[in-house]
Amino acid sequence: MVFLIYVIVKPTRLLCFCSDRLEFTQLAADHRAVNLGQGFPDFSPPTFIQEALREALSGGYQMHQYTRVFGHPPLVRILAKFFGRIVGREIDPFEDVLVTAGAYQALFCAFQALIEEGDEVILVEPFFDCYQPMVELAGGKTVHVSLRPSQKVEGSGVPSSGDWVLSPEELASKFNPRTKAIVINTPNNPLGKVYKTEELQVIADLCVRHDVLCISDEVYEWLTYDGNKHVKIASLPGMWERTVTIGSAGKTFSATGWKLGWAISSVHNMKNLKIIHLGSVYQCPTATQEAVARGFEREYELFGTPESYFQQLPAMLHQKREKLASCLGAAGLQPVMPEGGYFMIVDLSDQSTEDEPKDFTFVKWLTKEKGLATMPVSTFYSPEHRREFSQYVRFCFVKEDSTLNAAEDILRKWSQTQ
Amino acid sequence: MVFLIYVIVKPTRLLCFCSDRLEFTQLAADHRAVNLGQGFPDFSPPTFIQEALREALSGGYQMHQYTRVFGHPPLVRILAKFFGRIVGREIDPFEDVLVTAGAYQALFCAFQALIEEGDEVILVEPFFDCYQPMVELAGGKTVHVSLRPSQKVEGSGVPSSGDWVLSPEELASKFNPRTKAIVINTPNNPLGKVYKTEELQVIADLCVRHDVLCISDEVYEWLTYDGNKHVKIASLPGMWERTVTIGSAGKTFSATGWKLGWAISSVHNMKNLKIIHLGSVYQCPTATQEAVARGFEREYELFGTPESYFQQLPAMLHQKREKLASCLGAAGLQPVMPEGGYFMIVDLSDQSTEDEPKDFTFVKWLTKEKGLATMPVSTFYSPEHRREFSQYVRFCFVKEDSTLNAAEDILRKWSQTQ
Repeated sequence: MVFLIYVIVKPTRLLCFCSDRLEFTQLAADHRAVNLGQGFPDFSPPTFIQEALREALSGGYQMHQYTRVFGHPPLVRILAKFFGRIVGREIDPFEDVLVTAGAYQALFCAFQALIEEGDEVILVEPFFDCYQPMVELAGGKTVHVSLRPSQKVEGSGVPSSGDWVLSPEELASKFNPRTKAIVINTPNNPLGKVYKTEELQVIADLCVRHDVLCISDEVYEWLTYDGNKHVKIASLPGMWERTVTIGSAGKTFSATGWKLGWAISSVHNMKNLKIIHLGSVYQCPTATQEAVARGFEREYELFGTPESYFQQLPAMLHQKREKLASCLGAAGLQPVMPEGGYFMIVDLSDQSTEDEPKDFTFVKWLTKEKGLATMPVSTFYSPEHRREFSQYVRFCFVKEDSTLNAAEDILRKWSQTQ
Repeated sequence: MVFLIYVIVKPTRLLCFCSDRLEFTQLAADHRAVNLGQGFPDFSPPTFIQEALREALSGGYQMHQYTRVFGHPPLVRILAKFFGRIVGREIDPFEDVLVTAGAYQALFCAFQALIEEGDEVILVEPFFDCYQPMVELAGGKTVHVSLRPSQKVEGSGVPSSGDWVLSPEELASKFNPRTKAIVINTPNNPLGKVYKTEELQVIADLCVRHDVLCISDEVYEWLTYDGNKHVKIASLPGMWERTVTIGSAGKTFSATGWKLGWAISSVHNMKNLKIIHLGSVYQCPTATQEAVARGFEREYELFGTPESYFQQLPAMLHQKREKLASCLGAAGLQPVMPEGGYFMIVDLSDQSTEDEPKDFTFVKWLTKEKGLATMPVSTFYSPEHRREFSQYVRFCFVKEDSTLNAAEDILRKWSQTQ
């Protein structure tokens, strides 16, 4: 099989897209702000995974030298076993799994490998800000469909990320013969939405009907609250061969600085992803892969028990979510309660407006004047929809209680002066 | 500044190029052969750098979470300071340095960032087998010029990698208005050639005259023998702004499995490399960067002293080179003595010929029948020159003495049966 993918690289455009995130990260650093802006824990990974890395590093010279290019054998074996049990099918560790330099590089490989010049890729807004430039880097054109808050019955409780839904008709209208893929992210960053099976089924039906791929970013898969359950779209009928599922060791084990991720799909898709990996990074660090393998082996045995980190981490984050929601509420800010993930968005509708998008103004002001860093939500929308969704700000709650307390102090003082 | 780079991705071609290396790696594994094939140490990194990593991992949550995207501040600072002293100019740590997922990803970023559709890139043969597909992936066309053994005066001693030279006239003939860059690798893999200042000056003069970039792969920079000195082409007049210098922590500290590298260049080139890094990997592991920073800080202080690892490693490898050369000689194989690097090539001219390229046949036979894995040198040449250089086999000597002894036994037994 010989094929060509024509790609247009647009470096300045890419820089432009990433620059919002870099700018707000820099602003937080410059003002030494209490940082609820960036999506990483300000605490350590659990002891067992740190121990696993320490042991791996003492495990002989092999742990310091190259391993298999598409993934360290113990890691691809346990990933295949672990996720095979979840999706209910046998996953071939050596054919269907690729270990990457973070979920980020898995996304890069997926777009480069599967998107050809002129292909359309549907992005569900709000989305992680790298999707659009990565699709464009691969020669594709993004098409956008927004999750929107449905009308709540008066007095029906606090707003929830579950209220944000896709219109099935609007979604269906985005599929056409040029559509090559749809990208979903569940639990969603920044919203915290956890897609229900029925919602995924609507997407899956469209993928099957139009023979469209689904790139499913599931880096927050273990982080669900209030009984919400993460469902893998790859487990729905007809979707295994149409889905590239992307995961992250950093998000899974609260070790974002380890920069290890993976893509899992059928061998047909995987072959192309592997070629892009060969051409860009070649292989990933050995000891980290060994440690992550041991972490998943532990979790395989403990799965569903209270000792499982995949139970303990969401339990801890649930408390942090409650804490942040309550101090936001006390400051007169209306949070949208997330069903999953690291983040909570806040509706600024009642705040004063400015010429600049409201969220940009508010985030800059809060960082510079009050020393609390957050992230504007409109950066998670395509340019044409940014204005429409510029009344939201993202707060990250995967933070030490001391950090959340410091944020609470700032918010309390601010609300008293209003 | 708005610009476009048009890129043609040719996955099957890329796979094809990498497949030789993967095939021979697999063959070595299948036959559990004594492995002098792959270029990695079968010993551990020095204690001080292992300790530095262990300490970093105990250094608080920050070491397990994200750091700066273009390089952990302590690492870019010491890289700038260390290499600034060597090239004799101030290097800006935050503008001129990019930390990458291995030197391999630095090469990927350099080609993607700097090569546009239709650009010609001169590769000096023999070359690391990823250069050609990476250039093609970026839309470039490779042009090849071979190092060739010069005629030795009879009885003038053992062949040396220093005998392999470029014809200045032939090299000059490859430069034309479409030439965008030349790629050099010193010390060279697989040959072990260490370019002398005069040889680099010839290349530099052509780069300046034709305003051509030089991508200089210097991953083996500390590994030189017999008083040969590694010279950075970036230190020659007019070359700083025309050179992207690529280095490897894995090769520097005998820790190939850490997968950390860097590119250093003037800010003008770097801006584009950083964009490609943002679009493909985003950032590198934190603790590894911290440990490598500490390793370089140590080496900065010890530079030129006997305690420096950059003295100790080449001293150790010099002994291993001698050992391997002598057992090859005893088995009737003629080594070309390398001035630097991990590898030694052997001239098979006296061996029997086959239909397949001689080196492929010999390497397969030696792996399968005798249990000793090596690498055919013709894989380091462009397809049009492979036949011409198919009488050489590459042996890696960055191996434990026990491994070299096992290889010696195999070679001795084989020579006795001849």
